Amino acid sequence: MERKPTILITNDDGIGAKGISHLWSALKDFADITIVAPSTEQSGISMGITLMSPLFLERAEWKGETPAWRLSGTPADCVKIALNDILTTPPDLIVSGINRGSNAGRNCLYSGTVGGVIEGVLQGVPGIAFSCVDHDNPRYDVAERHILDIVKYALKNPMPAGTLLNVNIPNQVKGFKMTAQGGSHWSDEFDRRLHPTGKTYYWLDGKVPDSVDHPPDSDTALLAKGYLTAVPIRISDLTDNPTLDEHRNTFEELY
Amino acid sequence: MERKPTILITNDDGIGAKGISHLWSALKDFADITIVAPSTEQSGISMGITLMSPLFLERAEWKGETPAWRLSGTPADCVKIALNDILTTPPDLIVSGINRGSNAGRNCLYSGTVGGVIEGVLQGVPGIAFSCVDHDNPRYDVAERHILDIVKYALKNPMPAGTLLNVNIPNQVKGFKMTAQGGSHWSDEFDRRLHPTGKTYYWLDGKVPDSVDHPPDSDTALLAKGYLTAVPIRISDLTDNPTLDEHRNTFEELY
Repeated sequence: MERKPTILITNDDGIGAKGISHLWSALKDFADITIVAPSTEQSGISMGITLMSPLFLERAEWKGETPAWRLSGTPADCVKIALNDILTTPPDLIVSGINRGSNAGRNCLYSGTVGGVIEGVLQGVPGIAFSCVDHDNPRYDVAERHILDIVKYALKNPMPAGTLLNVNIPNQVKGFKMTAQGGSHWSDEFDRRLHPTGKTYYWLDGKVPDSVDHPPDSDTALLAKGYLTAVPIRISDLTDNPTLDEHRNTFEELY
Repeated sequence: MERKPTILITNDDGIGAKGISHLWSALKDFADITIVAPSTEQSGISMGITLMSPLFLERAEWKGETPAWRLSGTPADCVKIALNDILTTPPDLIVSGINRGSNAGRNCLYSGTVGGVIEGVLQGVPGIAFSCVDHDNPRYDVAERHILDIVKYALKNPMPAGTLLNVNIPNQVKGFKMTAQGGSHWSDEFDRRLHPTGKTYYWLDGKVPDSVDHPPDSDTALLAKGYLTAVPIRISDLTDNPTLDEHRNTFEELY
């Protein structure tokens, strides 16, 4: 009998978030799943890892027979501890999400959802990040319907080592597009307030990027048109080779 | 009279760390400096930003007349608030560090030192991350001697928009090399302990990568030979284009 694929699930909204339940539902009959997810919301944590605080790991209750753990850390911590201490063999795939809100364009670098997948990819395990682009009214049920097809595709047609797949899903899906990373960047807004003690503090509030003037072949532009987008993101070597070639000799002579 | 260059300094070891003082010393006569740095150590925070906690910003004491602020957040938060709320015009350059410990190879992605520079580069401000590779006995004084030359070089020969410079400095410098990003990855170790209440917790302890079998033209290999290394890192578009071309049509047909 052919064995089921093994899948590690994590997220950055925390193990109690709605999105991770839908991700599990989409894959529960297809794969042998293990869940290791943050105890609390870790949005914006990027590839952050926890060096200066202790990490508490506890078994979590989950539906069915899926083994699940909650960790007082980040998604990258979850993937590290899963690969090191929980799983006896590396999973066939890591999936992360379903995130509440878009991780399209360059903003995906801030994403803990994507950060967890990067951790896996750097350790040689392929991975996919899933996000619902609508933060205020995410239709996880719509996203759930497409996840199994994409997971099967990624297992059958693996990305090269060092490349992950970043999938963003609108509330109404007109079609699928594999495309390039958009160039958007959050317009930062700091909401300045006064603490009862008189001290000033700020809330950081990144606004969702608009997709005006984005290249037509990019996730940010195609999401605005109603497509589900998947961007293959290469993370294993970020060297800017043309720039290296240009500066190599002059830089050496500086010494 | 020609104006001095304007430089924003941040780090991830916190405003009280020794490395940031040496970075300031190296540049204080050359540039108009503003310092915005985390109140506490943020090692391993990557490009993390603070969405779920308030950010307290306070003036910090500093030598000379350099304006300095401490922020209860990450290096990326520091750069965001500096560019949005503190500086009236964007600086000519952001420099981050001097980090205690190596940020060479792919491990630079975990680095808050590099994360702060990425934030600037994504907002169109060029930047350089500086790290001392020896974590236990960092010779910041050695690093300091080379910083001004590299900053002058980067201002005179700007990297393309979207590319930062990641500089790592050994305790004894044999020469300068601009080179490619090494492939090393921390070997994770979790130190398991018992909390007084009986709960299990872990300390995450990433070991410094060895540089055996690294490509000779990479920062990890050249650092082991005693060179100061600078890697131009392209962060603005991570699309894996060959993979995109290969999968574009088959993925579209999935829907």
